[in-house]
Amino acid sequence: MITFADIEDAAARLHGKAHVTPVHTCTHIDDLTGARVFFKCENLQRIGAFKFRGATNAILSLSDNEAARGVATHSSGNHGQAVALAAKLRGIPAYVVMPNNVAAIKRAAVAGYGAQVIDCEPTAADRDRALEQVATETGAYVVHPYDDWRVMAGQGTAAKELCEAIPNLDLVMTPVSGGGLLAGTATSVKHLAPTARVIGAEPAGADDAWQSFRAGRRIIDIKPHTIADGLRAIIGEKPFSVIRERVDDIVRVDDAATIRAMRLVWERMKLVIEPSAAVPVAALLEGAVDTIGLRVGVILSGGNVDLDRLPWQS
Amino acid sequence: MITFADIEDAAARLHGKAHVTPVHTCTHIDDLTGARVFFKCENLQRIGAFKFRGATNAILSLSDNEAARGVATHSSGNHGQAVALAAKLRGIPAYVVMPNNVAAIKRAAVAGYGAQVIDCEPTAADRDRALEQVATETGAYVVHPYDDWRVMAGQGTAAKELCEAIPNLDLVMTPVSGGGLLAGTATSVKHLAPTARVIGAEPAGADDAWQSFRAGRRIIDIKPHTIADGLRAIIGEKPFSVIRERVDDIVRVDDAATIRAMRLVWERMKLVIEPSAAVPVAALLEGAVDTIGLRVGVILSGGNVDLDRLPWQS
Repeated sequence: MITFADIEDAAARLHGKAHVTPVHTCTHIDDLTGARVFFKCENLQRIGAFKFRGATNAILSLSDNEAARGVATHSSGNHGQAVALAAKLRGIPAYVVMPNNVAAIKRAAVAGYGAQVIDCEPTAADRDRALEQVATETGAYVVHPYDDWRVMAGQGTAAKELCEAIPNLDLVMTPVSGGGLLAGTATSVKHLAPTARVIGAEPAGADDAWQSFRAGRRIIDIKPHTIADGLRAIIGEKPFSVIRERVDDIVRVDDAATIRAMRLVWERMKLVIEPSAAVPVAALLEGAVDTIGLRVGVILSGGNVDLDRLPWQS
Repeated sequence: MITFADIEDAAARLHGKAHVTPVHTCTHIDDLTGARVFFKCENLQRIGAFKFRGATNAILSLSDNEAARGVATHSSGNHGQAVALAAKLRGIPAYVVMPNNVAAIKRAAVAGYGAQVIDCEPTAADRDRALEQVATETGAYVVHPYDDWRVMAGQGTAAKELCEAIPNLDLVMTPVSGGGLLAGTATSVKHLAPTARVIGAEPAGADDAWQSFRAGRRIIDIKPHTIADGLRAIIGEKPFSVIRERVDDIVRVDDAATIRAMRLVWERMKLVIEPSAAVPVAALLEGAVDTIGLRVGVILSGGNVDLDRLPWQS
């Protein structure tokens, strides 16, 4: 379990390394929702996503001994870049296992931060095997993308900044995938704004967290099918233990609503966000959560998008 | 001619009405240019472009008598939205003449601010005739998009904010079309940062300002051909008189470089900017201006883009 003290420690470690991202507002979205919505722009975070916070906190938490032989992870997305950059900042090697069908630009981004990219076949089994092999061979410390207390505490620093910048929030929303961001957010919000509700938003086509929340136990036999490529992971054990305790609800939205919300944020707010980041925005716009008259915080989780393949273009 | 006092007056009028837009930076672009670049985000201005500043200053400058019968303009782009919103804020009617082939979304945006849209054939002659007719019939005051001292003074408030937020700039760049933004910017910069150079960037396919600057007189028999749809106007008489006196240089970039720069800003800065806004960024990236070791300000002029037709997609 993590506490707010862990998030304070993480914030101290991230100081001067992660950006204190700005909070944007949009009159048009306020009009549509009947709320006052405050968007925490983690798409403007280093590597273009909140993931930098968790990876950096985990990697800076390692003892010199643990860190000496580097860090390893597998990722087809933002966590790989986050680990690569955090390792570079600490001056240690990083090994990132990536499926061999990943977009060239993502591979280049990870390699661009100086990490060694290890190709694997695009199956979970091959990916795990490749990660285990590289960890064994190099002695690198494995940084899990969400099922790790220090990663979770790092992710919670975004909501800490949001609550400190915007007082009296009634509701804070994040997307939910493995659960690290939602768990860290809930831990910050319940400490800094105890009366505020915390709600996760999940694609209807990858609703393992929604099902788990309702069942009171992790339901993991889900085949995710969603355009939100950052939200296809299955809810992790450690994050779920926090979410059960501190999160008020999880809601679902379909991909069409997510695409509309993403496009609206691009058009009206001039911010590039990825589909995953649009999921809680879609929940607000679709009325999946009652927001009339409320002060609502939303973590815009990231902005890493393939600009050659936008979801509203068929 | 305008003076810095006019820009101070404009800033007072805009206070609480226009956004004080943020200044963003990008380590990657700093690395590419060898400079420290400060981006003034006018894409985050109301209506998504700096044009709101000039139109609002002009419209708020009118006497009650002048304003009583409303304002009129012609525009296929950002100026129409700017006049529509500024008129709405003052509580007077707005009439915007638009070519009947304009994108539906632009028409809807102007109408959405409560302006009356008057269709015309997409020729300069028909456009001018339609504007004259509506002005005669209604008695509305015509707000020119750039050949107007008050509009120019309003545009200069963006550079005023930039110079106040970021001291010791060595160079400030803007795109140039009709010349209002560049003229206003030069007036602010030469007052607040007298040693800084001011350079306009123009598409090579619409280089009337570049030609005029070199000839020392307006050269206006140009058929603009550029993807930067906001930069197809011909340099205005009043702005040119300011530019001759206060601007250090004008440089040209080709559309391919503009498209690359636009994409880079979307990918790395997560900001939606329109092609016109990318023109000075392209000038920096292409080395059209020597920037090594300098502190450079760039006005990102706007972010209104048709998301169904991005310039890097054929």
